[in-house]
Amino acid sequence: MNVTLIGVGLISGSFALGLKKTYEGSLHVCGVDKDEQALQKAKALGIIHSIKPLNEAVAEADVIGIGIPVDALVKILPEILDDCKQNALVIDFGSTKKAICEVVAHHPKRTNFVAAHPIAGTEYSGPEAAFASLFEQKVMIVCEEEKSGSKQLELFRELCQMLEMRLTSMNPAEHDLHLAFVSHLSHVSSFALSQAVMQKERSEQRIFDMAGSGFASTVRLAKSSPEMWSPIFLQNKEHLLEGLSTYINQLQQFKSLLENEDTQGMKDYMKEANRIREIVDRIR
Amino acid sequence: MNVTLIGVGLISGSFALGLKKTYEGSLHVCGVDKDEQALQKAKALGIIHSIKPLNEAVAEADVIGIGIPVDALVKILPEILDDCKQNALVIDFGSTKKAICEVVAHHPKRTNFVAAHPIAGTEYSGPEAAFASLFEQKVMIVCEEEKSGSKQLELFRELCQMLEMRLTSMNPAEHDLHLAFVSHLSHVSSFALSQAVMQKERSEQRIFDMAGSGFASTVRLAKSSPEMWSPIFLQNKEHLLEGLSTYINQLQQFKSLLENEDTQGMKDYMKEANRIREIVDRIR
Repeated sequence: MNVTLIGVGLISGSFALGLKKTYEGSLHVCGVDKDEQALQKAKALGIIHSIKPLNEAVAEADVIGIGIPVDALVKILPEILDDCKQNALVIDFGSTKKAICEVVAHHPKRTNFVAAHPIAGTEYSGPEAAFASLFEQKVMIVCEEEKSGSKQLELFRELCQMLEMRLTSMNPAEHDLHLAFVSHLSHVSSFALSQAVMQKERSEQRIFDMAGSGFASTVRLAKSSPEMWSPIFLQNKEHLLEGLSTYINQLQQFKSLLENEDTQGMKDYMKEANRIREIVDRIR
Repeated sequence: MNVTLIGVGLISGSFALGLKKTYEGSLHVCGVDKDEQALQKAKALGIIHSIKPLNEAVAEADVIGIGIPVDALVKILPEILDDCKQNALVIDFGSTKKAICEVVAHHPKRTNFVAAHPIAGTEYSGPEAAFASLFEQKVMIVCEEEKSGSKQLELFRELCQMLEMRLTSMNPAEHDLHLAFVSHLSHVSSFALSQAVMQKERSEQRIFDMAGSGFASTVRLAKSSPEMWSPIFLQNKEHLLEGLSTYINQLQQFKSLLENEDTQGMKDYMKEANRIREIVDRIR
């Protein structure tokens, strides 16, 4: 099976490494990336076997996995569908789904495409961050299954099974709304916390001396790639703005409780928030 | 050496377990707690050897470690100093320092006291959460060293060395200001994020299906104990309010960038925030 990765970063690299565990020798992985260094690294790391120009790599692929920033994704996806083999399976790994699904809604080869979002990742990026078990036991969200071809969907499900993923489906609008709250908002909250602390603490040694693992956990996502996240935020603007308003409002509610020294109110607020425990403890 | 723990939770329990690694048989640990169940658990877990009433446990101790909510701490600390042995070392593990130092500033036995704050912890609490290596390679902040007796300070430093901790000192006002930003604010940001997400997502299964490890990391602190954190926030009210204002302001700045679809502005904001990486990567 010929697999082509468009973008050889954390997500598509882990996708390929995960599949290699099962398919071994029967898998040929070809990489395309505008970053020549990333391609060389991916080859050295054994993620890809060959490097080819886009049109060639697309034309010969049975499976195409696209892991690039979502603004580039919406531009390139129609062209990839234009050029792919008749029965090829084209999967995207984008963190937004509405804009991506819309851009190929009326494409004559829409059936070749499966709109997917693996709920997996780390705060690192690039092929050197990829690892074979990233997708294991994680959720793969699929949108508009009914628009994908049955052969493509079958192969897609088989690949997800190889990767030991749990499949769930929803429509693109739903996806974007929910992800704004449970993922995109977390990223903004971390970026803003990093900024707030650095604004106050000019000395980095000072922060380091006093920050514990709790702080590290809360600002972990502030290490994320601006190139990757800026287009996600933009494509999911309306829902993320709603998420931000809700979050700012929650912070202001807590601030009022503190201003009024409402001890019981603060405790009740935190007890409510504690309910997240059961959910979080199940996340791998 | 007789060690008495006032409160047998995560922090004091880990303190005792850490010391046991070095002192072994020469250490007798006695526990005091208003929660009888916690005492029994601490004994079963080998954290404490005996359970005694407060006055007795204080009277016979060479070292007293106090790990209880900071509102209870300011009430009980003067009494503990009243009743402790002439050369006893009394250490508190409170997350605030100003109110605690003030309440014993003119105590005749102020020299017996070392005001300390170990930058260590997890989102869990109780003796079952304690473990011997919690303090290893962590920072121990000491406030007003000059007010502690030289014998007490010497023993305190020896204990910290046994626990493999890195000592740093600052004044209580400085401590509270910085901790508001690098610790207390992180907790509020997590509690509020948990509330914002649960406000939107009524179905817990839905959150679980779509939340990844990034979300889990950002809301981890929302699992923290309201009983422990409410008095910390209250004692550090002014600084935390400043921290919250700064943070809300940062979120509003980002929200404006998004509203205006200022892609470059968002990227610059995130690049700035990325600078936290070097600090966070050094935190254990």
